[in-house]
Amino acid sequence: MRAYDIIRRKRDGEELTDGEIRFFVRGYTEGDIPDYQASAFLMAAFLRGLSFDETVSLTDAIVHSGRTLDLGKIPGVKADKHSTGGVGDGVSLAVAPIAAACGLKVAMMSGRGLGHTGGTLDKLESIEGYRCDLSEAEFLRTIERVGCSIIGQTDSLAPADKKLYALRDVTATVDKKELIAASILGKKLAEGIDCLVLDVKCGSGAFMKTEADARELAALMVRIARSCGKKVTALITDMDTPLGNAVGNSLEVMEAADCLRGRAPEDYTRLTYELASRMLYLAGFGSPEACRTQCERAVESGAAFRKFREMVAAQGGNVDWIDDTTLFPRAACSRIVRAPRDGFISRIDTEKYGTAAVLLGAGRQRKEDGVDFSAGIRILKKTGDAVAAGDGIAVLFASHEELFPQAEKLLFASVGYSDAPPPARPLVLGTVE
Amino acid sequence: MRAYDIIRRKRDGEELTDGEIRFFVRGYTEGDIPDYQASAFLMAAFLRGLSFDETVSLTDAIVHSGRTLDLGKIPGVKADKHSTGGVGDGVSLAVAPIAAACGLKVAMMSGRGLGHTGGTLDKLESIEGYRCDLSEAEFLRTIERVGCSIIGQTDSLAPADKKLYALRDVTATVDKKELIAASILGKKLAEGIDCLVLDVKCGSGAFMKTEADARELAALMVRIARSCGKKVTALITDMDTPLGNAVGNSLEVMEAADCLRGRAPEDYTRLTYELASRMLYLAGFGSPEACRTQCERAVESGAAFRKFREMVAAQGGNVDWIDDTTLFPRAACSRIVRAPRDGFISRIDTEKYGTAAVLLGAGRQRKEDGVDFSAGIRILKKTGDAVAAGDGIAVLFASHEELFPQAEKLLFASVGYSDAPPPARPLVLGTVE
Repeated sequence: MRAYDIIRRKRDGEELTDGEIRFFVRGYTEGDIPDYQASAFLMAAFLRGLSFDETVSLTDAIVHSGRTLDLGKIPGVKADKHSTGGVGDGVSLAVAPIAAACGLKVAMMSGRGLGHTGGTLDKLESIEGYRCDLSEAEFLRTIERVGCSIIGQTDSLAPADKKLYALRDVTATVDKKELIAASILGKKLAEGIDCLVLDVKCGSGAFMKTEADARELAALMVRIARSCGKKVTALITDMDTPLGNAVGNSLEVMEAADCLRGRAPEDYTRLTYELASRMLYLAGFGSPEACRTQCERAVESGAAFRKFREMVAAQGGNVDWIDDTTLFPRAACSRIVRAPRDGFISRIDTEKYGTAAVLLGAGRQRKEDGVDFSAGIRILKKTGDAVAAGDGIAVLFASHEELFPQAEKLLFASVGYSDAPPPARPLVLGTVE
Repeated sequence: MRAYDIIRRKRDGEELTDGEIRFFVRGYTEGDIPDYQASAFLMAAFLRGLSFDETVSLTDAIVHSGRTLDLGKIPGVKADKHSTGGVGDGVSLAVAPIAAACGLKVAMMSGRGLGHTGGTLDKLESIEGYRCDLSEAEFLRTIERVGCSIIGQTDSLAPADKKLYALRDVTATVDKKELIAASILGKKLAEGIDCLVLDVKCGSGAFMKTEADARELAALMVRIARSCGKKVTALITDMDTPLGNAVGNSLEVMEAADCLRGRAPEDYTRLTYELASRMLYLAGFGSPEACRTQCERAVESGAAFRKFREMVAAQGGNVDWIDDTTLFPRAACSRIVRAPRDGFISRIDTEKYGTAAVLLGAGRQRKEDGVDFSAGIRILKKTGDAVAAGDGIAVLFASHEELFPQAEKLLFASVGYSDAPPPARPLVLGTVE
């Protein structure tokens, strides 16, 4: 078998065999196939597409490109959730402890901020001392003792995806559903979980801009995960306006802590319950309504909040900051962005909010950049809200005043106003099971 | 400007600007753009195609990726011919001295064997002492004094093409007309010639298998070369049966010497005159008929043969071997391949003849391989010829008996027989001016 022939066959739109795809992924991961052949292959796959069978083969080849996690020794059902990425989407921090408080084992491996979207690891690391780099043994022990653990992907897990993603990122081959699905699921299925809930976001703040694209990606991922023997559900959720009221790392941890105390913004809370109860339902914890009730009780009783505290403590984080979120360091500077007119906010180009947060320091402009944990945006008004001229619509936080003008300009450009309230858009647009 | 955006735009089928293409070619040649981005770009260009303007930009960017040759100091019209490659196609060795004997300056930079096709340089190097690696100054001096010189491409000429071709070769992006045209013309136009005759071959022994493909490539190259200010003509010629009766390096030099003495096979002689007289006509040496007459006289008078001798001598070659071609070393072993039945040869899969010659040692199976100058095939019967069972159809030459079985098998598989003579196929299928 030769890499050349595999590239040529994909170039000509032929369907590759399972063996060919495994040969290519293994060869690339081990360094036998060079970057320049892999990028030609990726571009051919991007333009010619991959069949369902090819996508399953690619996913499975990524899963088995390294070690897979053995969660078998932990009693109970093991689950994870994955979001395709959005702005203000820190719900993993609340979903995991709620589901764990109900008795599910949540094994969550997360990522860092990507482009205009935030990353769960960056958010958690805004808690003093929190370690995302647990060893596999520590990760398993935390899941077993606490019920949930959130860490970064270990190096030995799905190494093909790391290498392929880095290459796609510089060769304009990221934005293709088959490649996205194989990348996401290649990582998730290597975790050895039983159940997976996918939150596929769509709208101006998501990678999938249209509902049709989001549904297609969701359907593909559900079909792949199921054919790999996993219980899986995907929600299509709205990312046409930021989720919750916080964009930025420590701001989003505070919002998650608020949620676990029952006092987060309505949309944030609703999505958190949707996702957590879906995980329980998939895991066989009862009817959808019963699962929903269990989640609500876990929050009301304080059990979910205590689970979060326990997880933070188990991973070395300063729980004082969780108990009293005013202890999180504050940004040195803040600036209010105000509405220029009376009316209603008719639209928010949410990606620009994410980009503004990155410019303020909440994300990385280059991979090697650090993150300013206290930087970000507190949102005061969202799509559909009534405003009067001069009302604050958002507060910007940053370490230096000079960072404000560019972010402020982006926010101004991204908010539309109207005289009448815009049509309401549901938060959950659909479910793919 | 970023390589990423250029890849993305080509991926999406957008037309790149001249500036973008130059930026990419320059960046790749200078090492600022890595192989993996260039191969993603090439695959995108392969699958999305390049517009005419893009192809001209690519050609010109290749021309100017290094030094261009300044033939301006040499008086007279400077010309070259280029063949897209075939089996037994050694006519350059005869065309150049004939045209030079008529007063044209022939500046010919040639290549080595590629795949199943032979290379002019390998053929010339079968002459003891012949140097293909003249310096630019030596090349210019030889053209000026002798009237023609055939050398390998110098490193400083069109370096982008070398790098791009090597990458295309391993990423399945060779076989695309726009890329082929830009590669051929990028090199040829960097030679600084005034006139160019292209021999675009089609049929089973050519890279273009169909006449339609050959015509399309010819039309594209003619249009590009003309828009770059060159006088240009393309002939579409048959490569569905080997040209002449020799396949292999010294065998083809002997055939060229025969041609210059007026005793080569009819098809070989006809194509040689067609190409040489086209070059003269383009260069303003008179009517097509007058140019043809000049070529014939140059051969009949011995002037063309003397020119060849002079060129070989000027480039260090042993002219005794030209004067008496029996001095060329003979292959240690030979074997006759015989017709299995009475009838007519109805078809020859000519690429297989080329591959058989490579297997016998006449070409390289890997780039680093050497070439056996005396290996090859003498063809006794070609498409259309009548044969009786047991007649020899070809003689194989090699250094070891073990090399015969595989080559013989290929020849058997590639020759078809019929009871009636097959329809004749013209040698020159068309002209694109």
